[in-house]
Amino acid sequence: MEAFSDGVIAIIITIMVLELRVPHEPTLAALRPLLPVFLSYVLSFIYLGIYWGNHHHLLHAVDHVNGRTLWANLHLLFWLSLVPFVTAWMGENHFARVPVAVYGIVLLAASIAYYVLTRVLIALHGRSSTLASAVGRDSKGQISTLIYLVAVPLAFWQRWIAFSMYVFVAIIWLIPDRRIERKLTN
Amino acid sequence: MEAFSDGVIAIIITIMVLELRVPHEPTLAALRPLLPVFLSYVLSFIYLGIYWGNHHHLLHAVDHVNGRTLWANLHLLFWLSLVPFVTAWMGENHFARVPVAVYGIVLLAASIAYYVLTRVLIALHGRSSTLASAVGRDSKGQISTLIYLVAVPLAFWQRWIAFSMYVFVAIIWLIPDRRIERKLTN
Amino acid sequence: MEAFSDGVIAIIITIMVLELRVPHEPTLAALRPLLPVFLSYVLSFIYLGIYWGNHHHLLHAVDHVNGRTLWANLHLLFWLSLVPFVTAWMGENHFARVPVAVYGIVLLAASIAYYVLTRVLIALHGRSSTLASAVGRDSKGQISTLIYLVAVPLAFWQRWIAFSMYVFVAIIWLIPDRRIERKLTN
Amino acid sequence: MEAFSDGVIAIIITIMVLELRVPHEPTLAALRPLLPVFLSYVLSFIYLGIYWGNHHHLLHAVDHVNGRTLWANLHLLFWLSLVPFVTAWMGENHFARVPVAVYGIVLLAASIAYYVLTRVLIALHGRSSTLASAVGRDSKGQISTLIYLVAVPLAFWQRWIAFSMYVFVAIIWLIPDRRIERKLTN
Repeated sequence: MEAFSDGVIAIIITIMVLELRVPHEPTLAALRPLLPVFLSYVLSFIYLGIYWGNHHHLLHAVDHVNGRTLWANLHLLFWLSLVPFVTAWMGENHFARVPVAVYGIVLLAASIAYYVLTRVLIALHGRSSTLASAVGRDSKGQISTLIYLVAVPLAFWQRWIAFSMYVFVAIIWLIPDRRIERKLTN
Repeated sequence: MEAFSDGVIAIIITIMVLELRVPHEPTLAALRPLLPVFLSYVLSFIYLGIYWGNHHHLLHAVDHVNGRTLWANLHLLFWLSLVPFVTAWMGENHFARVPVAVYGIVLLAASIAYYVLTRVLIALHGRSSTLASAVGRDSKGQISTLIYLVAVPLAFWQRWIAFSMYVFVAIIWLIPDRRIERKLTN
Repeated sequence: MEAFSDGVIAIIITIMVLELRVPHEPTLAALRPLLPVFLSYVLSFIYLGIYWGNHHHLLHAVDHVNGRTLWANLHLLFWLSLVPFVTAWMGENHFARVPVAVYGIVLLAASIAYYVLTRVLIALHGRSSTLASAVGRDSKGQISTLIYLVAVPLAFWQRWIAFSMYVFVAIIWLIPDRRIERKLTN
Repeated sequence: MEAFSDGVIAIIITIMVLELRVPHEPTLAALRPLLPVFLSYVLSFIYLGIYWGNHHHLLHAVDHVNGRTLWANLHLLFWLSLVPFVTAWMGENHFARVPVAVYGIVLLAASIAYYVLTRVLIALHGRSSTLASAVGRDSKGQISTLIYLVAVPLAFWQRWIAFSMYVFVAIIWLIPDRRIERKLTN
């Protein structure tokens, strides 16, 4: 399950770049219209990188799975698989309201799917397992979900504030997390 | 063989999303025409998830392969590789009769290919092997094949009933299967 | 090197299907123009399956590599990476002379690259190594190279005979090979 | 981290070929306009092969990672993920000044990202670690970075000299490197 998920995330993160359409003109000016798509790509690359890191770390602490786990995991991969689509839509439309909101919906759904996956895994391994302690209180995850919940409706009114909130969540996760490090060094 | 197959299925499941063409308009209305493609994508995502789970489970019980096995496995991957094509065709044509039937033919062929693979593996490992007991009577697989056999011709007459039958098969497999769980926990 | 090569071949075999353009009409007649592309796809799928099997088998017998080996391997992957391109070109042009010849050139180059890889590996491991005995006399490989050498110029004159020769080579390899089986069971 | 990175590089190296658009005419003349794209593809294939080899070799000497390492690694993969884009842009515009310069910028950024990754890993493992000795003085890496720094501005004035400098760097790396071999044989 770990290898399959890693593979899917690796493919998602890489095919996203196919949405960066090669311009026909060989000028710097021809690159300018690509700037929003590129910005959107950078944000999604970071998000997928975060998901890969956390997911990899999570599955490492797993020692057995059941059918429910497989589906909770596929459910997360499903939402992540929509990231290239919403990334391109948001970028190509210069961060218009609706695409910014829809981008947030996908992030929101992915964060809920991740939460569900951790609960399913903890239910299977027990509250006193290594896995449960590795997941911990997961306050970052819950704060992220809350921020998306606020940002999605806000996008229709103040799209740049909504977008900044997505960036803010990415930054929260970019800051080295002692929990992850502790696990990965084991 | 397991890693290669996992890789191929991971790629198939992910490139399917490339058929969800990014709309040019930044409105919710622009997403509406994508709805059938999206629905079609969701169904195929679930199907490929099911195949991945079962296939992974099957190959885990394998301890040796021969040339025949390699080809039986590639034969299955071949039919699965056609899923993105029929998914997009069915979705873009709003579940018209012919694409719904052709989608069913690919599912049918994949289910037969899976059956052949299990037989080839059992022939190699012996009827009293762990593998044979892991595959068991595989009644789900045989029921699925039968349902496809009925659904394909039906699609020309009652396409929504045929489509519902595909959804029904997916649901049969979505229900946690004790056989798989038992194996995966080992 | 094995995992990387398996990954590259898995991706090549899968992205080929993206060249099967989804038709706009939901009729069987709309599928007919795709028939040559499909036929071309089937042949290349089999070829890549053969390469995957042989290559996997070869690398399994390897116990150390050097820079030369890495490049001999990348050289093979390079030619294989051109298969989707020539497959689509040959199919979309209904097996016209030039694309059939160019398809053969890519097969020829891949077969030579494979031969070079085996020689580089044998030079590194010694003539009396397990690897050398696993590769054996490789008469199939040499016959294939010879057939391509004849088929490529012939394509300009008798394209269907040239194409049949490619199919013939695929069949030679499809027949279970005791050498591979013996190795894979170990 | 090694498997994920290998996967991402394998996908990048393979999807690049999708930019080789299949011509509609079945003639050799129809292939001629693809020549610059093909040349560009060959160079990038070699570069990605070099990165894969070095990166694989580097991560093999790693025995623990932290959050910082994950990000240094994703940072490198980010720049490599832009290679298919700049490769196609440079090729389709027949090595015009701006695309040649931008191609060099991506190579430059990737070489800096690689350097940063080695420093982050050495800081984590200690100057007297196996990893530090495996990386060594990395004079090739530093010379490459310097050459890119010169080639990028030069591209606006003498694009073929700039391009030749990229080819020259690739050749430096193609020459078997005793350092890598020594490690890989272990």
